[in-house]
Amino acid sequence: MGDKNKKSLDISRRSLIGGAAVAGAAATLKGAGAAESNPDNLPPNISEWTPYLGDGVDANPYGMPSEHESHVIRRNVEWLTASTESSVNFTPLHELEGIVTPNGLCFERHHGGVPDVIPADYRLMINGLVDRELIFTIDDLKRFPQVNKFYFLECAANGGMEWRGSQLNGCQFTFGMVHNVQYTGVHLSDICREAGVKPEAKWVLAEGGDSAGMNRSIPMEKILDDCMIAFAMNGEALRPEQGYPARLVVPGWEGNMWVKWIRRLEFGDMPYMAREETSKYTDLMEDGKARMFTWVMDAKSVVTSPCPEKSVISKGTQLLRGLAWSGRGKITRVDVSLDGGKNWKTAELHGPILDKSLTRFTLPFEWNGDEMLIQSRAIDETGYVQPTIQQLQAERGVNSIYHNNSIATWMVNKDGSVDNVRLG
Amino acid sequence: MGDKNKKSLDISRRSLIGGAAVAGAAATLKGAGAAESNPDNLPPNISEWTPYLGDGVDANPYGMPSEHESHVIRRNVEWLTASTESSVNFTPLHELEGIVTPNGLCFERHHGGVPDVIPADYRLMINGLVDRELIFTIDDLKRFPQVNKFYFLECAANGGMEWRGSQLNGCQFTFGMVHNVQYTGVHLSDICREAGVKPEAKWVLAEGGDSAGMNRSIPMEKILDDCMIAFAMNGEALRPEQGYPARLVVPGWEGNMWVKWIRRLEFGDMPYMAREETSKYTDLMEDGKARMFTWVMDAKSVVTSPCPEKSVISKGTQLLRGLAWSGRGKITRVDVSLDGGKNWKTAELHGPILDKSLTRFTLPFEWNGDEMLIQSRAIDETGYVQPTIQQLQAERGVNSIYHNNSIATWMVNKDGSVDNVRLG
Repeated sequence: MGDKNKKSLDISRRSLIGGAAVAGAAATLKGAGAAESNPDNLPPNISEWTPYLGDGVDANPYGMPSEHESHVIRRNVEWLTASTESSVNFTPLHELEGIVTPNGLCFERHHGGVPDVIPADYRLMINGLVDRELIFTIDDLKRFPQVNKFYFLECAANGGMEWRGSQLNGCQFTFGMVHNVQYTGVHLSDICREAGVKPEAKWVLAEGGDSAGMNRSIPMEKILDDCMIAFAMNGEALRPEQGYPARLVVPGWEGNMWVKWIRRLEFGDMPYMAREETSKYTDLMEDGKARMFTWVMDAKSVVTSPCPEKSVISKGTQLLRGLAWSGRGKITRVDVSLDGGKNWKTAELHGPILDKSLTRFTLPFEWNGDEMLIQSRAIDETGYVQPTIQQLQAERGVNSIYHNNSIATWMVNKDGSVDNVRLG
Repeated sequence: MGDKNKKSLDISRRSLIGGAAVAGAAATLKGAGAAESNPDNLPPNISEWTPYLGDGVDANPYGMPSEHESHVIRRNVEWLTASTESSVNFTPLHELEGIVTPNGLCFERHHGGVPDVIPADYRLMINGLVDRELIFTIDDLKRFPQVNKFYFLECAANGGMEWRGSQLNGCQFTFGMVHNVQYTGVHLSDICREAGVKPEAKWVLAEGGDSAGMNRSIPMEKILDDCMIAFAMNGEALRPEQGYPARLVVPGWEGNMWVKWIRRLEFGDMPYMAREETSKYTDLMEDGKARMFTWVMDAKSVVTSPCPEKSVISKGTQLLRGLAWSGRGKITRVDVSLDGGKNWKTAELHGPILDKSLTRFTLPFEWNGDEMLIQSRAIDETGYVQPTIQQLQAERGVNSIYHNNSIATWMVNKDGSVDNVRLG
């Protein structure tokens, strides 16, 4: 068996090394196959696991990833916050494909840790400028018409360390405060109708059940447009760190507003000026004034492979992969540059292309061993084009933490390693 | 705090009991709210978790569901097979929402257990009627153009116990051999082009790396149409029980053909008559002859709530939820009957409605405490209408195990409990 396989492997290596690509297969393996670039990594027997009976079905009633994937995890930065209860970890975007973020890998950000909310005791209270104050159980919510939507959730501070050009971090820490799941829940417009919201109600205070009592003001127009109370993500109940058993979904707007463990919605006639919209989540401008209520997450994109964590491992044809998203609607185009923005090619977008959802793009490229400066720029259905950091700073200065949606640059070095760099 | 909440809850109960639904809110809570049906289940304090600091972010680098969701698991039937290494467990469809099946809840079926394939040692061999025999590593595969598609995977035996009318099982065991994820991988047509498949090649033998050496014959037409070698599901690497690190994806066709731990594709000029397409996965007809190569999974649907595991818990407006799918394309309509098929209403379909993917449907209904016979029937873009069991049996007799896509009936009893029954 071993000899037979060895023979096949030798045949394969010759074929790959011979550059036997057929006409029209421009993006398939050409010239330098992985077998050439890594010629000693041939296994003694490609089927050494086959003779043995494997694990049965009842070992994992809730299945887990392979132990060989133990590096695909959320990661946090210890020095970033004083405690883990008020901290963040980051989605490993560079290890992911497609548009679904697995629930176990969705970045989390807390202000007072993850409360253990008992679902049978959970209540959502509606009060303020309404005809009927109401309290809903989870079962009550599940009797309303249902909404099922894929939406990205991005922290306003995603990439915040790049405003002044730190460029210290790779893909996970620079872009990983975003995830994308299918939410199931109910439209807040239905809740409003049930409660009989008064015409003078213009704002809602959304309040969480965590120890921080996280709260934010949201204008009624957005509440009635597309906001949801979600109780499921990617088919199953919300994860504890994502607000189990129910959270607010504010499509396309900064993640801080998506109040988790949502326990109360108060309808009022003015914004509530909560801590998280006065002390935090404002954008300090060059003149010392701060922009408030900058809710929308503008179009953005990231190349997830290659990236600082994903070297280019061989010469020849490679497949560049990335993600694009916009809080203003659908992504209509993504351009990719390999020379730091001088020339651009349009990438392939992979469906489904959905409103306010991550969108996957790919582009084949050739690597001949020279340095490259990889960039991507997203364009959304409003015509908005993702800006350079220089364009953003010309408008906003360098005091900001939040809302950095500028084009990033990955520099591919001659050894295939990749660095996060700033141009200009 | 407790007193204040108690007061709010009382207000809420009155509002709900008073039937204070606003005009136009036909599907919102009316009359009998959950608070009425379950009046003593009011918590002493809706915010008892709030005073306490919760868990920090670094506790779970790969997150898990809430411990309160420990009942949401795959389940197997011990008596169904001789050993767990050649067995099946079932997706808890009745606990899921939307169209994404979380990877940890995807049903699994094995013939020799789950092999522990080391990704660095993994190879996919291409041989037979090709110009170039090739062997690919996972990294090689990732250099090809990429495909990202949501597809359902259904075992041909899903619902097989219902052919003769056992009706013993609920939603999970009767319908749970199906799941739906976004696959990322490469088109087999690109692999074929790279290998230079000869014109006389009409069939492919797909062979797995498990101890059963699971293999199936697949016609070239399907291979070139939409088959994939997938290495990721729902964004992350395939789960071990789903073929880590690579599996075949045969969209819309029976799950047995989606060979896991795929190690070899042999191109030939006739079908290979493998065990799994001669001894098994054929349909024994009334006259003693067997249908072979009945690959396509015809349109089917299931009401996931209410169902035998999900009682109707209160009177008034409820939301019926279900899933529909077709191996021939997109679902275009789902009808729901509450009276055993006499009258039908068209359900709402929730997007994205995708080719050969689970599609979510919902329909509000009123329950006044009487018995109901709930059915759903799916219609796909070819015009195919999901049949009754009588229609299927008229054509195929009662010897079959596989390909039962008939309409199921859930009987709602006066106490709200639900039974799996057969009509006629």
